[in-house]
Amino acid sequence: MAESVRVVVDAMGGDNAPVEPVKGAVEAVTKRQDIQVILTGQQDIIEKELEKYPNYPKERIQVVHTSEVIETAEPPVVAIRKKKDSSIVVGLNMVKRQEADAFVSSGSTGAVLVGGQVLVGRSKGVQRPPLAPLIPTTEGVSLLIDCGANVDARPSHLVQFAKMGSIYMEHVVGIKKPRVAIVNNGAEEEKGNALVKETFPLLKACGDINFIGSIEARDIPMGYADVIVCEAFVGNVILKLYEGVGAAMMKKIKAGMMTDFRSKMGALLVKPALKATLKTFDASEHGGAPLLGLKGLVVKTHGSAKAGEVRNAIFQCVQFKQQKINEKIAERIHEAPADAE
Amino acid sequence: MAESVRVVVDAMGGDNAPVEPVKGAVEAVTKRQDIQVILTGQQDIIEKELEKYPNYPKERIQVVHTSEVIETAEPPVVAIRKKKDSSIVVGLNMVKRQEADAFVSSGSTGAVLVGGQVLVGRSKGVQRPPLAPLIPTTEGVSLLIDCGANVDARPSHLVQFAKMGSIYMEHVVGIKKPRVAIVNNGAEEEKGNALVKETFPLLKACGDINFIGSIEARDIPMGYADVIVCEAFVGNVILKLYEGVGAAMMKKIKAGMMTDFRSKMGALLVKPALKATLKTFDASEHGGAPLLGLKGLVVKTHGSAKAGEVRNAIFQCVQFKQQKINEKIAERIHEAPADAE
Repeated sequence: MAESVRVVVDAMGGDNAPVEPVKGAVEAVTKRQDIQVILTGQQDIIEKELEKYPNYPKERIQVVHTSEVIETAEPPVVAIRKKKDSSIVVGLNMVKRQEADAFVSSGSTGAVLVGGQVLVGRSKGVQRPPLAPLIPTTEGVSLLIDCGANVDARPSHLVQFAKMGSIYMEHVVGIKKPRVAIVNNGAEEEKGNALVKETFPLLKACGDINFIGSIEARDIPMGYADVIVCEAFVGNVILKLYEGVGAAMMKKIKAGMMTDFRSKMGALLVKPALKATLKTFDASEHGGAPLLGLKGLVVKTHGSAKAGEVRNAIFQCVQFKQQKINEKIAERIHEAPADAE
Repeated sequence: MAESVRVVVDAMGGDNAPVEPVKGAVEAVTKRQDIQVILTGQQDIIEKELEKYPNYPKERIQVVHTSEVIETAEPPVVAIRKKKDSSIVVGLNMVKRQEADAFVSSGSTGAVLVGGQVLVGRSKGVQRPPLAPLIPTTEGVSLLIDCGANVDARPSHLVQFAKMGSIYMEHVVGIKKPRVAIVNNGAEEEKGNALVKETFPLLKACGDINFIGSIEARDIPMGYADVIVCEAFVGNVILKLYEGVGAAMMKKIKAGMMTDFRSKMGALLVKPALKATLKTFDASEHGGAPLLGLKGLVVKTHGSAKAGEVRNAIFQCVQFKQQKINEKIAERIHEAPADAE
């Protein structure tokens, strides 16, 4: 059997804490033998939650008590510095000290991103750790890299994103020779803003990625590329507009189905099949977003994550560890390009 | 009666030329008395199209023969310079010489944008003419400004976009005190890339717009703001992702409705009502995108525009002229901010 993977789960993070993170942890250790979960948070509350589940392998869930909680509204840098006994800081420090392999949280995105970089630390050679969620497409999923908190990236950052994203898609998601594309405002090579124009030839020159050129935003949901490289401001716009347009269309569709008797009847018939199909196009079904390029693994799940997403994020951590993704990243990002700090 | 408005329509531009532009022109002059249309393009072909319509007011459609056509794939700057007898160049020159008030084309976006700036020319004080399409929201429409060809804007450009967009939404679309927001990667004031951080206080200081702060991409389709200000690269991503996510969801929905007998029956019942509702969320229903800040008006309609979109774009031109939008823009953009060229 493969080596056991130790994952810290923030039991206090997100809208549905502690219920859903605890449930996700229980589901994960019940389903797979090679997982150890450490839950950080208010011990008495977590233990009360765990009592709901009589039949899980108790020796594989440990609780580490923490007295503080970082709220979503708190400024991340201050929160990380001050709340040393919070579920996030304690969890990240366990990864730093190699007492755990990975950390999963549905809590404050800012705190997780800042804490990941400050506490766990960047892997050697990595200039900027990108946040890389999987987004649904009509063909499956693509990796959108970077959606993190640090905007205004440099070309050398984007090149590293392309390499790290390729490794992740190949070895965690299982896509052979993943197609890498850079987000652009046109398909022609002369298109682009200053950043894209400067990055394009660098990506083209990379022998170790399968670079297919520019991708227009219109083609992202069609799955034309597996690794979608962009600067974090643009990545944030893409990720959030995905959610926004999806939600707006669902609202319109629901209203459209309720306009008259005929369509109401139709809606009743069509609902179950439609629900199942649309679920495959729901970003939250695909587990969390990894913060790549750190000395350990940090995964951010949605603030609204349910147990299924937490469980999938834990499984992602196992795959990540067993496939030695960090070692592969360290091998490929051996030298920093010319414009590095 | 209000003064008659003279609109040049490019009869050779777009996937459905000359059929749909000609039909749109006929519909426009038939529906409103105060419109004169000039069709530019191959005279014999246009006249053959016009013969299909026996009952329109013939004295209000004029054909100006042009021997050349600019193809979508041609480099815009070269095409504008070389094809002096093309339907686009001839049409834009008529606006320049004030023989027409506006120009509508479904042809090459690049050629229309470049030609608008080079041939018609910028209005005094305007640093960069933005392309500003109306995008559908669950509440109606919002103006997305800028989606043009010139990326990497400066803060002073965005401030002008905010002002021009406000004037357009108030006087052409009829929204009183339109809410202006800047696209950002978070709602908090300290969020943003360098451009947004620098632009935010400038917008806040504008006494003549109703600035409501940052908007996250997620909230754009919900109609949280009327004028969505952003740099053209980001605007392009938003506009195209709108289309892309919409198309991908429709594909998923259609597949979902065809999974079994029960849902197929439901689909038949629900289809007409659903189609009508989704039409209100279709970008192409809202006429063309104006290129603002020029000495005349230039409107770009979709490459796939049908007669209805061309007709609506012509009506937009009438509203634009009669509401004296260019005069209002000239009044408000009287002085260039500090960082101007």
